[in-house]
Amino acid sequence: MTYAVGLNLEAGLVFAADTRTNAGVDHLSSFKKVTVFETPGERVLVLMGAGNLSVTQSIIGQLQAWRTAPARGRGGSRKARSLDHAANMFEAARIVGAAVREVDALDGAALEAHGSSFNPTLILGGQIKGEPPRLFLIYSAGNFIESSDETRYFQIGETKYGKPILDRIIRGDSSLEIAIKCTLISFDSTMRSNVSVGLPIDLLIYRRDSLTNGFQRRLARNDPYMAALSESWSQGLLRAFDALPEHDWMAKPTRSRKSR
Amino acid sequence: MTYAVGLNLEAGLVFAADTRTNAGVDHLSSFKKVTVFETPGERVLVLMGAGNLSVTQSIIGQLQAWRTAPARGRGGSRKARSLDHAANMFEAARIVGAAVREVDALDGAALEAHGSSFNPTLILGGQIKGEPPRLFLIYSAGNFIESSDETRYFQIGETKYGKPILDRIIRGDSSLEIAIKCTLISFDSTMRSNVSVGLPIDLLIYRRDSLTNGFQRRLARNDPYMAALSESWSQGLLRAFDALPEHDWMAKPTRSRKSR
Repeated sequence: MTYAVGLNLEAGLVFAADTRTNAGVDHLSSFKKVTVFETPGERVLVLMGAGNLSVTQSIIGQLQAWRTAPARGRGGSRKARSLDHAANMFEAARIVGAAVREVDALDGAALEAHGSSFNPTLILGGQIKGEPPRLFLIYSAGNFIESSDETRYFQIGETKYGKPILDRIIRGDSSLEIAIKCTLISFDSTMRSNVSVGLPIDLLIYRRDSLTNGFQRRLARNDPYMAALSESWSQGLLRAFDALPEHDWMAKPTRSRKSR
Repeated sequence: MTYAVGLNLEAGLVFAADTRTNAGVDHLSSFKKVTVFETPGERVLVLMGAGNLSVTQSIIGQLQAWRTAPARGRGGSRKARSLDHAANMFEAARIVGAAVREVDALDGAALEAHGSSFNPTLILGGQIKGEPPRLFLIYSAGNFIESSDETRYFQIGETKYGKPILDRIIRGDSSLEIAIKCTLISFDSTMRSNVSVGLPIDLLIYRRDSLTNGFQRRLARNDPYMAALSESWSQGLLRAFDALPEHDWMAKPTRSRKSR
């Protein structure tokens, strides 16, 4: 299973993904799920995928092929589908969507015939010079949606356990530091409730208008900060629980709505 | 959507279910999802259902029919399928499973043909004299599992948002008061993240060996205790978040694993 989050804040973009993939408990491996396409000073694009690993790897492979393919006779073909030449993030999202459809056309039917479904979801975020940073969620049909002032983040994979904390904390003006903390707590909640999501976590922070992939870290399996964060959060939750107001449930029903 | 939880603790059983059902946002209604079968001094059985409302209502209807049907010529037939005569909770769970299969046989194919799936899940808990309290999760095939020392609760419906807090707090020796608080916080998290789960909540507490349905409350839409609980929890989470350890992310990568 995968869990990945992308956030689009005024201060920049935050990306995080676990590295665990599995096909049954006897085949649990680590793979990088974050891919960066970068032309320093001009564009930084970050892509994360969830779903069948062969599918998401093929999508990345297709995007790489389009970047490096020799220009066709009629020209334009290479340029049209290369993330290096997309004029803006919307065009880049369309290119990723096209790669999803390409892989579906090649592998989709065979996967279905073997009882697997073609179900990739991807998060694409980044900035191309002349535009603000943008963030997209791309579905398995190759269609996509973009984040907004109201919806500052997208999740893919095992999304539910880690959603409540994002909903409570993340706002457009959250600092990158707050966003990192919140993202890691979101992972902590997910890892607690679903053993198939786990460390290491790949973390990538993009500062608005830097146009360079400035910050990338892998939090290892025994990362001491992650452990300290997890422990502090656990203690804080217990304190919050202990501080909850009491209620006299055994009072008569007519009084049962009174809190004290 | 439904959210319901059943807990089996040393002190007794706790049941809670929201009352909201929907078939699209323009058809959102309230229905009771908790049914009690009681013979004071001898047995208390509590059943909660999630899934297509017509299906869960038909299952209850079938169980009621088996309780009140006139005894057959050969005898035994009525007794065999009446929750009032089940010798123990295992037999009661089998009867509920049989009712699930009966409704599947009647309605399953027609539902599938109309694009609905036959997908009820039910929680059955209670105590029959001579046994400790027991708790079961019954699937749409009529099969079921029982709670254990390691797994003290079952959830049905929209289960994920409210699971982390149960995992953190609930232990076999949790008091009923703690269990109620934790259950309501579990509902609070679910209602925050999924608008189709909402107040009122039906709450039923069964004290071990009481053999009577001693305590049942409906927390209304504007219940002041629920509001106070939600606000206190929200504040406590923000305090816990603010207290998280800092990390110097901009330090050199080799130092990135150091927390301070």
